[in-house]
Amino acid sequence: MNETTVMPDAAHDEAAHEDEHGHGAHDGPHGYISSKENYLKRLRRIEGQARGLQGMVSDEKYCIDILTQISAMTSALQSVALGLLDDHLSHCVVDAAAQGGPDADAKIKEASDAIARLVRS
Amino acid sequence: MNETTVMPDAAHDEAAHEDEHGHGAHDGPHGYISSKENYLKRLRRIEGQARGLQGMVSDEKYCIDILTQISAMTSALQSVALGLLDDHLSHCVVDAAAQGGPDADAKIKEASDAIARLVRS
Amino acid sequence: MNETTVMPDAAHDEAAHEDEHGHGAHDGPHGYISSKENYLKRLRRIEGQARGLQGMVSDEKYCIDILTQISAMTSALQSVALGLLDDHLSHCVVDAAAQGGPDADAKIKEASDAIARLVRS
Amino acid sequence: MNETTVMPDAAHDEAAHEDEHGHGAHDGPHGYISSKENYLKRLRRIEGQARGLQGMVSDEKYCIDILTQISAMTSALQSVALGLLDDHLSHCVVDAAAQGGPDADAKIKEASDAIARLVRS
Repeated sequence: MNETTVMPDAAHDEAAHEDEHGHGAHDGPHGYISSKENYLKRLRRIEGQARGLQGMVSDEKYCIDILTQISAMTSALQSVALGLLDDHLSHCVVDAAAQGGPDADAKIKEASDAIARLVRS
Repeated sequence: MNETTVMPDAAHDEAAHEDEHGHGAHDGPHGYISSKENYLKRLRRIEGQARGLQGMVSDEKYCIDILTQISAMTSALQSVALGLLDDHLSHCVVDAAAQGGPDADAKIKEASDAIARLVRS
Repeated sequence: MNETTVMPDAAHDEAAHEDEHGHGAHDGPHGYISSKENYLKRLRRIEGQARGLQGMVSDEKYCIDILTQISAMTSALQSVALGLLDDHLSHCVVDAAAQGGPDADAKIKEASDAIARLVRS
Repeated sequence: MNETTVMPDAAHDEAAHEDEHGHGAHDGPHGYISSKENYLKRLRRIEGQARGLQGMVSDEKYCIDILTQISAMTSALQSVALGLLDDHLSHCVVDAAAQGGPDADAKIKEASDAIARLVRS
């Protein structure tokens, strides 16, 4: 989808690696490669929470305790989403904006729609 | 935690089985037994979504597509939470309220706190 | 709507006034009378925030600062909603549950729907 | 705060006015000038909703009806926030990204923080 827009040249890459804020450093096409292992670890933990919830329902644990786990899991999911969104803005959107033109507008529109879905979900 | 408050007598059970709204029918201590299989099915699907997300991150799928999946998973989780909360209000809270006293107050306080966590997560 | 169900008798009122948790004490039909002034004060502040936002937009203040104000205002509104919901559960729902019957089920269904709207908004 | 970064040159302005998606057209420093009247109108309506809520509490209207109004008001506020955020990304962030450097990173960080506050509020 955005393969053509995100094609970091060497100069960009060098600047990126100097970034101290975690914004800008990326090696792959979709920007989050640097923290891919971190995202996978968090998603595995979320998968474990989903399995834990099944155990709680199976064992008929107290509803309120199950709801507390669901709130924790929802927060963990939101946190992953906010991280991915920050990565996306830092890389895809910034790169598209640097190139300008209709593609930049389309990327912003797409990001805004994703943000609206997150805020409303 | 609430074993003593939820002790449906026969009369209550009979009325419960006539309930057409899904409110009132329960056999176990925690009220959601009637739809336990349904909850387990939804949680298994949510677990599958968590696994699918790991595949998307592994394959470096487009961020926006991953965010769309996270929004869907968050909505599915919220829906399970709202179902459990409705079951909890319909059974534990109603039963405690019918008995009255400090236990009823404690149950309401506990439910309100759970709702606040859901609204804010 | 709930005029018939919430008709506290003297015995109930006496118990209510002994309540130390703020749950149970009410004089009016809709349960929140005891903290009515508190709710009005918070809603006046929220109204002031809405007016302040108009000033910020008029003066073309920085977007991010406006968004920060909107987040604060949303939290204040949610907090009022959670307070009213707790009052509603403590009074109307508990009273209906104590009476039992289809009215109790209807009250729970109505409360659950309101909670779902809050969680999803 | 961002006065120095957003200094659209004539060429940019011309392109902006051709934008059919509402992204890109702006005359003022903070990007939302084109729809300022629209935002003010929506915020006045939100202020009216806050005043309406005070009337409902004063008159001791039914809690559930008040909660419905609060959900509607929260949605209206969120919608204003999402509009402002889209404007902000389309203008300030895109302009900063086009210039590149640490300012672009700072703008993304700032926007991500604002998004996190919206998602969590």
